[in-house]
Amino acid sequence: MQTNRPIDGKRLWDSLMNMAEIGATPKGGVRRLALSEVDREGRARFRQWCEALGLGVRVDAMGNMFARRAGRDPGRPPVMFGSHLDSQPSGGKFDGALGVLGGLEVMRTLADLNLVTEAPLELVNWTDEEGSRFAHSLVGSGVWSGVYEEGAVKALCDVDGVSVGDALRSIGAAGTEPARVFPADAYFELHIEQGPILERERKEIGVVTGAQAQVWYEGAVHGRDSHAGTTPPSTRRDALVAMAEVIRLVDRTMRARGEDGRGTVGFLQVIPNSTNVVPGEVRFTAEFRHPDEAEIGRIADIFPLEAEALVQTSGCRLELREKFRIPAQPFDPACVALVQEAADRLGLSSRRIVSGAGHDAVYVARRVPTAMIFTPCKDGLSHNEAESILPEEARAGCQVLFEAVVARANRPL
Amino acid sequence: MQTNRPIDGKRLWDSLMNMAEIGATPKGGVRRLALSEVDREGRARFRQWCEALGLGVRVDAMGNMFARRAGRDPGRPPVMFGSHLDSQPSGGKFDGALGVLGGLEVMRTLADLNLVTEAPLELVNWTDEEGSRFAHSLVGSGVWSGVYEEGAVKALCDVDGVSVGDALRSIGAAGTEPARVFPADAYFELHIEQGPILERERKEIGVVTGAQAQVWYEGAVHGRDSHAGTTPPSTRRDALVAMAEVIRLVDRTMRARGEDGRGTVGFLQVIPNSTNVVPGEVRFTAEFRHPDEAEIGRIADIFPLEAEALVQTSGCRLELREKFRIPAQPFDPACVALVQEAADRLGLSSRRIVSGAGHDAVYVARRVPTAMIFTPCKDGLSHNEAESILPEEARAGCQVLFEAVVARANRPL
Repeated sequence: MQTNRPIDGKRLWDSLMNMAEIGATPKGGVRRLALSEVDREGRARFRQWCEALGLGVRVDAMGNMFARRAGRDPGRPPVMFGSHLDSQPSGGKFDGALGVLGGLEVMRTLADLNLVTEAPLELVNWTDEEGSRFAHSLVGSGVWSGVYEEGAVKALCDVDGVSVGDALRSIGAAGTEPARVFPADAYFELHIEQGPILERERKEIGVVTGAQAQVWYEGAVHGRDSHAGTTPPSTRRDALVAMAEVIRLVDRTMRARGEDGRGTVGFLQVIPNSTNVVPGEVRFTAEFRHPDEAEIGRIADIFPLEAEALVQTSGCRLELREKFRIPAQPFDPACVALVQEAADRLGLSSRRIVSGAGHDAVYVARRVPTAMIFTPCKDGLSHNEAESILPEEARAGCQVLFEAVVARANRPL
Repeated sequence: MQTNRPIDGKRLWDSLMNMAEIGATPKGGVRRLALSEVDREGRARFRQWCEALGLGVRVDAMGNMFARRAGRDPGRPPVMFGSHLDSQPSGGKFDGALGVLGGLEVMRTLADLNLVTEAPLELVNWTDEEGSRFAHSLVGSGVWSGVYEEGAVKALCDVDGVSVGDALRSIGAAGTEPARVFPADAYFELHIEQGPILERERKEIGVVTGAQAQVWYEGAVHGRDSHAGTTPPSTRRDALVAMAEVIRLVDRTMRARGEDGRGTVGFLQVIPNSTNVVPGEVRFTAEFRHPDEAEIGRIADIFPLEAEALVQTSGCRLELREKFRIPAQPFDPACVALVQEAADRLGLSSRRIVSGAGHDAVYVARRVPTAMIFTPCKDGLSHNEAESILPEEARAGCQVLFEAVVARANRPL
């Protein structure tokens, strides 16, 4: 079987642009929040496209959608691929959509060529990957993979008090299949990198070998609020001055690990936050990521102690809680090899890369042999209406997905 | 005339506690926002107390209240004293109230002793010193002193869209007198220090020689928001990491000037303020104060340049605007001397001190010879429900006020 199949880059791009009309924002982005009316529209269009290809669409209790294409051997577990159609509040056109509609293009190409794979294929649209609306990401794939408990997730509420369960019902997204893992042979996910590495190194394909280990903290620096005009230096206990040392420590801890390090204080709240009051309290989050789980272990051992020492030197008190630690998630070597081989065969430049972001694939990988394919995105920008990729980049990623999926589905058992 | 008059410390304390019932908070503080229904009650009680002493109360168009006691020589301009009855949202019992009710106790003591001063006396309750409700402090004394334009101030709105003018009318606080400076011989204001210096040095009286010079900035650090998991160190432009350097610079700039220096970043806002997003922008305020105006000039010359250099080193861009500069306001040497002499005569320990906070006296001093008297407050704490002073501290301050006022009102012309 010839694997170097053509992908119709224009058809793929048209699908992406067509889907981007649903929830389009004035600035050229997309706002398609999970389980919203706009998400309902996106799901309906996706289902229509699948059914037009003759694919049967099953939906589970979490709203995860599975479009199945029969294989020659009905006894083989399916090869799965896909991503998500929900977006950030000010999201881009490609985050998630590329994986779902790239998967659709794989299905369409197989239909064009009248090709039937040995194993069945299942194209997936996972529910609520982004976590923007219910403040909890990877909801659909997390329940499916058994990482989250279905009842607990369905009870999560948005800012208006609408629960995941209510929202599933109100847009008719809940299906009759149980939301739990079923036997599957593999899972492939095509996604934009959401970072600058491929673009900077002019690589067309990122062969994703796994996901980083992470440790997340939430904390507070306690000082004493006092009058900015009357409190002399010797009696100040300025929580923000102490916090400045913690911010620098997080940055230093990252940079000490070179280009693989990640360390960010992304959230910070000053109390009382008034121009003429010495800050009495600062609440914050800090997070570190690294491909090597041992590095995250070392950071978790030393960062709280170093931060506490710095804060005490400033006359304040540190409160720090490790919110969670996510182990590194290596992808399946055989699936990763299929991605690498496809890129090489197609003559596409590539590099191995560790995913910095979370993806449905990271949870699915706990239960099913998994790999991911990254494509570059302009300036590494994502979660932003200006998110941008080129049609030829989308096509290249989709070709690799096609190759990897077909090779896996046709592998001799 | 014997000047070492007894002040009834218990009566003074009872007045303070009685006024503190109006707007009392569960935590023992006071919430008496300017021109609120609660402020109306406070004003009514103050007027009742004044009228019970036979003092005529005039009110001007800004709601400033003047309770007049005739002097022997009706041709002499009055000696004024007072402060304000409005409070912070979570304020204490003494900030402002001590000056007004200490002044009332001066009036009562004079009545007890059947003493008539040469010059008339005027006890003042200035409208909206705190600036909490309409986000603009020193409103009443500012208009009276000609620092602010009456129409502009009356158009200021609270968060509910109620203007100062509306609020004045709705609680019936606006009077018929024009809100502008009239000839006055002197102004004395008794106030808690709102800082820790007197308590730390165990001084009973602060002889306030003037107010600090100030420079206020508002600014923003512009970086680039990006994904915390996918953005490597080399391509980050983290606005919060750059801001940490600015926070440290402000603190360093303060400490380089010893115990007289003040430098504070009190307000800070991170955008987008999400755990897993590298901050793209930080908005902030910074302010410096120093008794020596030349020091503030030197800071204003160098701080913006140093801050810009630090922010650029972090790959970000600084936007900085000098919001305003307040010159140092020296008080009148003759009035300050009266305060010092009173403290010495009464055998009270004292030290010269520069006011770190803004006060009605600072604006009045632009038009009328002025001095202030500070009393210690526990832990230097103010703008806080836990604000606390001792009855004997209030009494000592009130005695000095009595002495200074009577000495000024009886001085030979």
